[in-house]
Amino acid sequence: MSLPLGFTGARLDRADQLRTNADGFAAAAADPRARCLALDGIDFVPGEGGGLRWDPLDPADDRALLLLGIDDGGIPHFVREAAAGTRIDARSRTVMRLLPLLSGEDAALYGGARSLVDWHARHRFCAVCGSPTDPFRGGWGRCCTQCNAEHFPRVDPVVIMLATYEGRALVGRQGGFPPGFFSALAGFVEPGESLEEAVARELFEEAGLRVADVRYVASQPWPFPSSLMIGCRAVATDPALTLDTTEIEAAMWVDKDEVRAALAGDMGAPFMAPPPLAIARHLLEDWAG
Amino acid sequence: MSLPLGFTGARLDRADQLRTNADGFAAAAADPRARCLALDGIDFVPGEGGGLRWDPLDPADDRALLLLGIDDGGIPHFVREAAAGTRIDARSRTVMRLLPLLSGEDAALYGGARSLVDWHARHRFCAVCGSPTDPFRGGWGRCCTQCNAEHFPRVDPVVIMLATYEGRALVGRQGGFPPGFFSALAGFVEPGESLEEAVARELFEEAGLRVADVRYVASQPWPFPSSLMIGCRAVATDPALTLDTTEIEAAMWVDKDEVRAALAGDMGAPFMAPPPLAIARHLLEDWAG
Repeated sequence: MSLPLGFTGARLDRADQLRTNADGFAAAAADPRARCLALDGIDFVPGEGGGLRWDPLDPADDRALLLLGIDDGGIPHFVREAAAGTRIDARSRTVMRLLPLLSGEDAALYGGARSLVDWHARHRFCAVCGSPTDPFRGGWGRCCTQCNAEHFPRVDPVVIMLATYEGRALVGRQGGFPPGFFSALAGFVEPGESLEEAVARELFEEAGLRVADVRYVASQPWPFPSSLMIGCRAVATDPALTLDTTEIEAAMWVDKDEVRAALAGDMGAPFMAPPPLAIARHLLEDWAG
Repeated sequence: MSLPLGFTGARLDRADQLRTNADGFAAAAADPRARCLALDGIDFVPGEGGGLRWDPLDPADDRALLLLGIDDGGIPHFVREAAAGTRIDARSRTVMRLLPLLSGEDAALYGGARSLVDWHARHRFCAVCGSPTDPFRGGWGRCCTQCNAEHFPRVDPVVIMLATYEGRALVGRQGGFPPGFFSALAGFVEPGESLEEAVARELFEEAGLRVADVRYVASQPWPFPSSLMIGCRAVATDPALTLDTTEIEAAMWVDKDEVRAALAGDMGAPFMAPPPLAIARHLLEDWAG
């Protein structure tokens, strides 16, 4: 592959053992070298020399500390729960514009932190009984103050797949995409199905395709808010399309030359390819490369 | 592979288009052929001729109908939300004993239904604001009666992996396993990591192994309560084990002959292999076969 997959490659040790060790967690939080990720809401704040900004821990800040991990030098890295009432958007234009400026490692670290802070902000109450919840396990869960139900951060698996048929691949666009932009089709995995079944179901629902073969290609997290993108390839048995226009505005079969032109950003390409942070780009490169 | 993967192969069309079409949903619920999955709590109830029991829709039952899908003959299949106060256990001994008696298709259908009913039962309140929620989208979501936040069924991705080193594979056991039973190691994928990163992290956390290569093998749902098991193989760079004894009671490297003996149920095998419904068995078969 030409580039590492987006939002992968964070180099902190998540230090799972500290999450359930109150003394170890307290020692990490008391470490004078400990750092806290600077956020504006849940967007990152660029540091002076580029990259993420890390601040010393502010003892006057009473928001819960969430442990991101420990770096190679033993320095604990934290992020704080968002203040109550912080506006949480699924997507941020600012972040999408700034993300390509981060190193892959910083993007991965921020992505995980963003998903975690977002999850805490939208899980202040217990889904079982409606009572308030408090963070526990070093910030990797919340526990109900009344019924003691334990809740853990969501990771929503999404299949994203390149359907192929006799030397061509299917790209589609949703209504909200920028003009000319096409990508691989995708959808959330539902309870009661394997990845392969989810790929087949989504391609049939969205494009009317039946597939004979599904193959895993690669995966990456996508922190808007907390998807796990599982990239696959699927061989269609027939190229006729029946689009679900509530999901897909347009779709088309493209050949490898057309995909290569799109990946190269050629003005004459029949579509604009997804950006490097998106696994859809990797699927196109993997197929056309 | 010798057998279809556990909990895969449900043959209902999930009929996504009916979920957001109130008239279509009402017509399906009014279809005199419509069936409702019989449950005792969230355990299935065996039918007279074996298999699942399906009842006609009872108009006096005011619990929400959740649409499982439409069969080849156009017959709508539903399950009802559990009654308030129903005891929801993550695992049921009765179900585990009866499951092997179901066809693969019925096990898959029941597994998806169980995950869905379990999720509804544990999400009667809004995690954002604590107010009651109501089912919507044909039973494939809940909407807050106060803040209108939309919530969707969880699917929790889990990596389960066979670490290998020079012709041997690693099997481990948790304290609660039946005597002699060993399986592949596993763990939940966390926000901010790819499948491959989750495999590497879990093998290091649980067994102290570093891995050089991770390869996807297969996936299946696991409805206790709603995991997506993602089976992988990983090549360890060194066989020395450092077990996290809070997670793993024992682990050992076994060769292909030993795995084949365990899969065959030989009395002389060094361990008892996982049952056919578990993807861990498939990983062992895939490696030793």
